[in-house]
Amino acid sequence: MKLALEEARKAAGVGEVPVGAVLVMEDLLVSGHNRVIMDADPTAHAEVVVIREAARLTGNYRLPRSRMYVTIEPCIMCVGAIIQARVETLIYGARDLRYGAVESMLEGFSLDVNHKPEIRAGVMEDEARSLMKVFFQARRNGEVPKWS
Amino acid sequence: MKLALEEARKAAGVGEVPVGAVLVMEDLLVSGHNRVIMDADPTAHAEVVVIREAARLTGNYRLPRSRMYVTIEPCIMCVGAIIQARVETLIYGARDLRYGAVESMLEGFSLDVNHKPEIRAGVMEDEARSLMKVFFQARRNGEVPKWS
Repeated sequence: MKLALEEARKAAGVGEVPVGAVLVMEDLLVSGHNRVIMDADPTAHAEVVVIREAARLTGNYRLPRSRMYVTIEPCIMCVGAIIQARVETLIYGARDLRYGAVESMLEGFSLDVNHKPEIRAGVMEDEARSLMKVFFQARRNGEVPKWS
Repeated sequence: MKLALEEARKAAGVGEVPVGAVLVMEDLLVSGHNRVIMDADPTAHAEVVVIREAARLTGNYRLPRSRMYVTIEPCIMCVGAIIQARVETLIYGARDLRYGAVESMLEGFSLDVNHKPEIRAGVMEDEARSLMKVFFQARRNGEVPKWS
């Protein structure tokens, strides 16, 4: 999760919403961050970025025995991507009360979906939440380029 | 929708689940199909494929005034991607009773989400459903390479 937080900081540094993720799978470790603006890709949330990269590297569209660390509770798109990829364990930091689709806006994995990962929430949540707060506060004050 | 069905047929031809999509946005038209297996990308559903391509081509991570045609009711991941991309109008063919996240397994756009497209369902649904039926029937009989 420390590495995921490091990735979130990198995202903030380039004006992206500070969410970072790490995916671990056997001897593979992939890390990444939100890159929606820089890649002009609405689907490039941190979770999708590491899932796509791990699948590309392993040549497999399923990621069995994988563990994902992400700094913020995944949104509905990312919950779907985690299901598609069969991520085995999901560990996240702070809740996203507005868009979180694991326990906040929706309990996505409680639906009749075809894969439910093991879940651990609240890991280093203060650091993750603080990064988001500082970022959005600065953006409101015009201190960070607002691209959208 | 005819073009989306054509894309779905292409997908079936290469052993991918036959779902096709077309995204229209001003003078841009992007078409694509499910390419999860061929790209080793669990997120490469037809909807995500055309969203990513249209965003790349326009250099914008939002797709205002865009219309998406897709042969089958989108899943939860794709509903999320449609929200992220701000697709303005969603037109789809057949329902996916098992995984559809517009009206079947979940009514995704009725949640407290930050974007709700105009929706039209059931367009050329018989053709779309028939492609899926034939594909899965053939796969069960071992007539199409089963990759998963």
